[in-house]
Amino acid sequence: REVISLPAEMDVEEVAQIFDKYNFLALPVVDKDGKLLGIVTVDDVMDVMQKEATEDFLRVGGIPAGEDLPLDPPLVSVRKRLPWLMGLVILNMSVAGLVSRFEATIAELAFVASLMPLIADMSGNAASQALTVAIRGMALGLVGWRDLPRVLWKEMRVGLLAGLGLGVQIGVIATLLWRKPLFGMVAGIALAGTTVGACLTGGAIPFLFKRLGLDPAMMSGPVATTIGDLIGIGLFLSLSAAFRSYLM
Amino acid sequence: REVISLPAEMDVEEVAQIFDKYNFLALPVVDKDGKLLGIVTVDDVMDVMQKEATEDFLRVGGIPAGEDLPLDPPLVSVRKRLPWLMGLVILNMSVAGLVSRFEATIAELAFVASLMPLIADMSGNAASQALTVAIRGMALGLVGWRDLPRVLWKEMRVGLLAGLGLGVQIGVIATLLWRKPLFGMVAGIALAGTTVGACLTGGAIPFLFKRLGLDPAMMSGPVATTIGDLIGIGLFLSLSAAFRSYLM
Repeated sequence: REVISLPAEMDVEEVAQIFDKYNFLALPVVDKDGKLLGIVTVDDVMDVMQKEATEDFLRVGGIPAGEDLPLDPPLVSVRKRLPWLMGLVILNMSVAGLVSRFEATIAELAFVASLMPLIADMSGNAASQALTVAIRGMALGLVGWRDLPRVLWKEMRVGLLAGLGLGVQIGVIATLLWRKPLFGMVAGIALAGTTVGACLTGGAIPFLFKRLGLDPAMMSGPVATTIGDLIGIGLFLSLSAAFRSYLM
Repeated sequence: REVISLPAEMDVEEVAQIFDKYNFLALPVVDKDGKLLGIVTVDDVMDVMQKEATEDFLRVGGIPAGEDLPLDPPLVSVRKRLPWLMGLVILNMSVAGLVSRFEATIAELAFVASLMPLIADMSGNAASQALTVAIRGMALGLVGWRDLPRVLWKEMRVGLLAGLGLGVQIGVIATLLWRKPLFGMVAGIALAGTTVGACLTGGAIPFLFKRLGLDPAMMSGPVATTIGDLIGIGLFLSLSAAFRSYLM
């Protein structure tokens, strides 16, 4: 009778999927000649999976350097959190550079600045959703590198649909608050662009990172947020500049 | 001999901690008279824990309405993601309202707008770290409601130390880019305030939400980000307004 066994070089996530699917309690591990090397039990696999899930959770949350517990001494936590935040400041200077090219427009149309934090925050929110879905799907073994085109096609459609909803929403709000329907339209297009950019990069970056041998959970959020910012704030300020005479 | 048993009303996280600590494979569940109701095995507990960890991961990532998989149809994903994003737009209008009170300052000092997306993004990053630590600590049973003062005291010190580092960093960068040391100082104080605000609210909100019977992972990110935005952008624009004649 055929005996199910695990090759020694099999990825732990694949092993976990086999245990999960067939409800085995233990499986033999063999080398490439089929010689028994040992036994893996369901406990071992669950421990490893829990460790990986925790790592993903912490890394997506911006704690890449291992566990940081609520009552650890502040200096221990600062050492784990600050280098990450300082890197993100550098990354964000690309957005500051983009905005500073539009100083003349902002001086004339100061009210446009009111919606810049919205675009920045929403880019983070939409990116966070897309990458959570991608990372979870990869951990479950539902998608791999060759699914990237399908994931991108899906995320583009999600971004366009959600962007349409958000664009109409902020368009109505901005028109009511500032009594400028054209400003509402500019804000709506910018928020839609932000959403598409954040969904696409949030969906793609975990795959690209894994392909490059990096952790998919690491840095995906800030990179996708920054790209979403650049697209959204770039659209917003470009359109404001183009229509400045009608917006004043 | 004393038999270890689980009261039927015990919380599943507490049950998991007992299994984890003592490496039991199964434990009896009893009612309040000590009568046997059934047996819980380690598999059951791990399944429940994995389900809860997944829920936390998805909710912190902004997918509150259950699993959203990478290759689900776009409309299914939009239904799970868009209501959440639309709620965050409303929440963010408080930041837009704050910024619009400073239109005169922004018209005069348009270059200050360059750092507004940085403050908004970093508030999200610092909040995300603090709440990841809090939610993980609660899931591990390391902290509960009565530890809130100690968590706040810790997060305040982390926020101040990390804020000091980030403040000095952006102070130096802004001074070099805009040749205005006073603007560097204003940006530094604002970024430090953002960090303290985001750490405190990111650390506190999961506890407050759990106390109110809500899911600690739900909405903590956006609420803490918005409070960090209000503090940081409020400080930044107030100080810019106060020193406007020296910044021009």
